[in-house]
Amino acid sequence: MREVFHQSLEDVQSRLVEIAELVTVAIDKATRAFGSSDVALAEEVIEADTVIDEKALALDELAIEILARQQPVARDLRIVVSALRMSASLERMGDIAEHIAQLTRMRFPERAIPKGLKSTFLKMGELDVEVARQLTELLRTQELALTEEIRNADDALDDLHISVFEKVLSASWQGDPSATVDATLASRYHERFADHAVSVAKKVAYLSTGDWATSTDTIDVVVP
Amino acid sequence: MREVFHQSLEDVQSRLVEIAELVTVAIDKATRAFGSSDVALAEEVIEADTVIDEKALALDELAIEILARQQPVARDLRIVVSALRMSASLERMGDIAEHIAQLTRMRFPERAIPKGLKSTFLKMGELDVEVARQLTELLRTQELALTEEIRNADDALDDLHISVFEKVLSASWQGDPSATVDATLASRYHERFADHAVSVAKKVAYLSTGDWATSTDTIDVVVP
Repeated sequence: MREVFHQSLEDVQSRLVEIAELVTVAIDKATRAFGSSDVALAEEVIEADTVIDEKALALDELAIEILARQQPVARDLRIVVSALRMSASLERMGDIAEHIAQLTRMRFPERAIPKGLKSTFLKMGELDVEVARQLTELLRTQELALTEEIRNADDALDDLHISVFEKVLSASWQGDPSATVDATLASRYHERFADHAVSVAKKVAYLSTGDWATSTDTIDVVVP
Repeated sequence: MREVFHQSLEDVQSRLVEIAELVTVAIDKATRAFGSSDVALAEEVIEADTVIDEKALALDELAIEILARQQPVARDLRIVVSALRMSASLERMGDIAEHIAQLTRMRFPERAIPKGLKSTFLKMGELDVEVARQLTELLRTQELALTEEIRNADDALDDLHISVFEKVLSASWQGDPSATVDATLASRYHERFADHAVSVAKKVAYLSTGDWATSTDTIDVVVP
C-alpha cells in the first residue's frame, strides 16, 4: 500500500511539473506577444489555456481518487491537499497569461504596451517567465533555495508594479485613457502572476517544514 | 462513525455560512465606504479581513482533520474537498472587499468613485452585496434556485464592468489618469467578487447533482 501511495505521489508531482511547464510556455509566449504585438502568438496562448485547465482538472480528480482509495493521513494527506491547491494556483497563472494575450489581441494592430512603459513591461515579462521557470524547477527538485529566488523576483515585480502607477499618475504621462487602462490591467496581471507562484512555492516549503500556518497566500499590492 | 461524520459536515457547513456572513458584512461596508468616501468604515473592513482569513484557515484545518480521522469516500469526500475550495473562494472575496476599502482610503479625502460613474458603481456595489447575501443563503439552505439568481447578478455585473470601460474610453470621458486607474481597478474588483461567488455556487450545485466536470471557475471578463 505504501509503495502504491508513493507511486501515486510521484504521479501527482510529475503532473504538477507538467502543468508548470505549460504555464511557463504560456507566460513566455504571452509576454513576448505583448511586447511585439504578435497577435498570432497571442492566439496560441489563448487556445492552449484549455489544455492547462483540463490538466489541472485531471490532477484534481487524481488527488481525490488518491484520497478515496489510499486514505492518507498526516504529512501524506497534506501533500495531496496541497496538490489540489497548487493545481488551482497554476491554473490561475495560466488564466493570467491568457489575459495578457487577450490584451495584445484586443489592441492589435496597435501596440498593447503604452508608450513610455516598454522597458518596464519587458522587465516585468522577463521576471514572470523567470518565476515560472524557477517554480517548475522547484516542483521538480524540491530545492528550497528556489523559493527565495521566487520571492525576490516577486518583490522586484511589486516595485515595477508601483512604478507603473507612479508613471501613469505623474505630470509627464501623455497616455490617453486607453493607454492608462492598459497599463493598469497589464501591470496588475504581471504582478498577480508572481503572487500565485509565491503561493505555490510556500506550499512546497511548507511540505518540507510542516509550517502550515504561514503558508497562506501573499497579500497582493493594491496601488496606487 | 457515520453520525460523527454527519456532525462534522454540519460543522463545516455552519462555518462556511459564518464566513459568508462576514464576507457579506465586508462587501456591504466596503461598497458603502467607497460610495461615500467613508474612511472610518473602510478601515473597519481592512481590519476585519484578518478575521475572515483566520476563519478560512481554521475551516481548512477542520476539513483536513475530517479527511484524516474519518476518511470519507465518494460523495462525502467530495463535500469535504469542495469545502476547501469554497473556503479559498470566500477568503478571496474578503480580500476583494478589502481592496475596495483600500482604494477608498488611498483617495481620502478625495472621492474614490470617479465623476460620471457614481450610479454605475453604486449599482455594482448593490449587486455585490446581493450576491454575497444570496450566497450565504445558498450555503445555509442549499436552495439551488439561488444559484440562478447569483448567475444573473454576475451577468449584470459583467455588463456594468464593460460599461465602465466604454465610458472611460469614450470621447466624453473627462477623468484624469488617476480617475481612469481607479475606475479600472474598482470595476475589476466588483466584477471579480461575483465571479468567485458563482464559483462557490457552482460547487454547491455540483454537490447536489454530482456534475463535477462543469464546476470549474468562470472565465472572467477581460475588457476593454
